[in-house]
Amino acid sequence: MSSIFTKIVNGEIPCYKIAEDENYLAFLDVNPNAKGHTLCIPKQEINKIFDMEEDHYLGLMAFSRTVAKAIEKTIDCKRIGVAVVGLEVPHVHVHLIPLQDMDDMRFQRKTSLSQEEFNNLATAIAANL
Amino acid sequence: MSSIFTKIVNGEIPCYKIAEDENYLAFLDVNPNAKGHTLCIPKQEINKIFDMEEDHYLGLMAFSRTVAKAIEKTIDCKRIGVAVVGLEVPHVHVHLIPLQDMDDMRFQRKTSLSQEEFNNLATAIAANL
Repeated sequence: MSSIFTKIVNGEIPCYKIAEDENYLAFLDVNPNAKGHTLCIPKQEINKIFDMEEDHYLGLMAFSRTVAKAIEKTIDCKRIGVAVVGLEVPHVHVHLIPLQDMDDMRFQRKTSLSQEEFNNLATAIAANL
Repeated sequence: MSSIFTKIVNGEIPCYKIAEDENYLAFLDVNPNAKGHTLCIPKQEINKIFDMEEDHYLGLMAFSRTVAKAIEKTIDCKRIGVAVVGLEVPHVHVHLIPLQDMDDMRFQRKTSLSQEEFNNLATAIAANL
């Protein structure tokens, strides 16, 4: 069965898209730790990040850096945090999280946004790429 | 003033070293979230990871991947988590954390090890590089 992220890649599930190229996709996390929390994924469904081939992995990290810089230009924050966990969805995803404090990294305190706010945010970040 | 990590790079503060090359250093976190929790740093003191030049950043991520694979060979865990935060020490550091559950990512539940356990662990991970 396809992962939820493969369904997003294939357009079967919609997303608030920020960036896309041949191999990678970035979109807003719909259950964000903080406003601007973004996921960067390889389009290929791979479970663990360190099982990716080196070039494919480094391509994801370069793509994530470009997206992180656009988030940092858009969102007022101290810095962009990075987390790769993957205990829930077995498809590599790099969390990019605008940080104000350590709780933004803990995946416990969540932020609610309306559909309009998500759309405006994705557009604003994409414009800063 | 030099960061605590620059003092480690310069040998002014000891560490449980795992790997080192011209540009990067990996050593055990002495206040680990889980056994095997490792920090990978650039020797150059830079505050924010996404302010690193692209080649320097990708070099750090390649180095971290090599170290992560050695940790995964050494420690019984579900996978290696990655976190970059930096709200406390303004010198880039990539946390590599052997995960059993989500709490291993939260920097709240900590593990104690003796000096001998740290030494044996660093030696064991380095042997799997």
